[in-house]
Amino acid sequence: MADTSRRNGDRAVNAASMTGKTLTGKTLTGKTLTGMTALSIGKDLKLTSAEELEATLRHIGATRYHSLHPFHKLLHGGKLNKGQVQAWALNRYYYQSTIPIKDAVVISRFRDRATRLEWRHRIEDHDGDVGSEGGIERWLKLTEGLGLDTAYVESTEGILPATRFAVEAYVHYCREKSPLEAIASSLTELFAPNLHEERISGMLEHYDFVNSDIMSYFKRRLAQAPRDAGFALDYVKAHATTPEQRAQVCNALIFKTNVLWVQLDALQHAYVEGNIPPGAFVPKAS
Amino acid sequence: MADTSRRNGDRAVNAASMTGKTLTGKTLTGKTLTGMTALSIGKDLKLTSAEELEATLRHIGATRYHSLHPFHKLLHGGKLNKGQVQAWALNRYYYQSTIPIKDAVVISRFRDRATRLEWRHRIEDHDGDVGSEGGIERWLKLTEGLGLDTAYVESTEGILPATRFAVEAYVHYCREKSPLEAIASSLTELFAPNLHEERISGMLEHYDFVNSDIMSYFKRRLAQAPRDAGFALDYVKAHATTPEQRAQVCNALIFKTNVLWVQLDALQHAYVEGNIPPGAFVPKAS
Repeated sequence: MADTSRRNGDRAVNAASMTGKTLTGKTLTGKTLTGMTALSIGKDLKLTSAEELEATLRHIGATRYHSLHPFHKLLHGGKLNKGQVQAWALNRYYYQSTIPIKDAVVISRFRDRATRLEWRHRIEDHDGDVGSEGGIERWLKLTEGLGLDTAYVESTEGILPATRFAVEAYVHYCREKSPLEAIASSLTELFAPNLHEERISGMLEHYDFVNSDIMSYFKRRLAQAPRDAGFALDYVKAHATTPEQRAQVCNALIFKTNVLWVQLDALQHAYVEGNIPPGAFVPKAS
Repeated sequence: MADTSRRNGDRAVNAASMTGKTLTGKTLTGKTLTGMTALSIGKDLKLTSAEELEATLRHIGATRYHSLHPFHKLLHGGKLNKGQVQAWALNRYYYQSTIPIKDAVVISRFRDRATRLEWRHRIEDHDGDVGSEGGIERWLKLTEGLGLDTAYVESTEGILPATRFAVEAYVHYCREKSPLEAIASSLTELFAPNLHEERISGMLEHYDFVNSDIMSYFKRRLAQAPRDAGFALDYVKAHATTPEQRAQVCNALIFKTNVLWVQLDALQHAYVEGNIPPGAFVPKAS
């Protein structure tokens, strides 16, 4: 019915059929994932086990994580000029600096002390502590190393409005959806280490304005992200106990891949295709 | 100091100097609006009267309203194919159908009955009443007339994630900012009638798949928008009584122009430049 009643395409651009495929050791026997839209995995997929949930999550990552975005290919392949890399780092600062706010919102959703304790170190990872540096400071090393004024970066006055809307959507999502979905939306971290490996080596190789010191944010995340993603994956596998809850978990991951994808679409449109919106950062002629 | 301490541009792309210029009969004597960013009018502008506030609002409209966006030039000039017009109408449906939710949030901010009464007709304009059609139904006439399945449109499953984030940002803004800013964010309606006139004539002239009946939404708005905008403009001129409040009003309008601009940037990137994100609406080959 879904195939004939809709006159206009609603097929996922990147969603190939999963039927009979094995994804990183997990099988989704007899299920298809052809009905995925921009918003959801579709109504027809019933996930009946934690293994099917994990396979679907990994499929979403394999088809929609922003490692696939053309802007990242340009960034890691040395195809951007310094101003374009500045624009990326400037905009991404808003995302980075919002993460501990998002994580505080997640913590606020749990009456269960153990979950709060587990989640709290995420805030520490980004905010550091008195006398010890966190992820946000490491990101400012990157923007400063790229020649951006730190006060300007911190003001966020020049970021793309699309960056702001996408990042704020993430905070609102964690506040308004169920605690299960709030945790599930962090699951893009499952796919981050490969991306960070590629980024570190690619950027160091291709850009003379990048050095190992200013890439310290990513090196640190190589250790942090897998630990966090492991907890979140175990959590959703244990706590999503119905097909409806498993669908919510998958849709939360789709939501989050959209949050990341929109940011790169906006960067590409503004700084690669040359459509900088009113008032946004304008790189100096390079 | 602002000129020298920032190594990287933070100038508004479209913000020309206002010094000494008269804008639609209002003067902003001796003030400059060169510090406008993506987020705000900047820290240096002190608006000391309701007249200066109105002149600044009109300047923001003249430089940042989405009538200036290249996608609208294509739409109104007959340069899009049917699938691209479908994508515009499909995405814009999410905006239209969220407006009464936004307006309910605005109403919820006011303990003052008179303001609630005044604002309530906006919900009626969009939702209609039992037996009488509202703006959302008129919009669905447009999408249906363009050949889109109404159930698919209403599902919002195929809209661009950037559309969703921008529109939801508008609702959250009205919930989280001051009541004054919630009202001020509606002020783009000051500039809507000219855009709608241009749209009606341009689309009827250029597209054989557009007729007068399916453009009824815009014809109706020609009467509704000026009344609403008049109230909101009088309200902010009377209730913003300090330079700080006048700046908030201007920044609320900048925010709203961003909400509109981001939607067209996303449409242009996806459907003109050909970068449709995963799962979003794919027009049939035309």
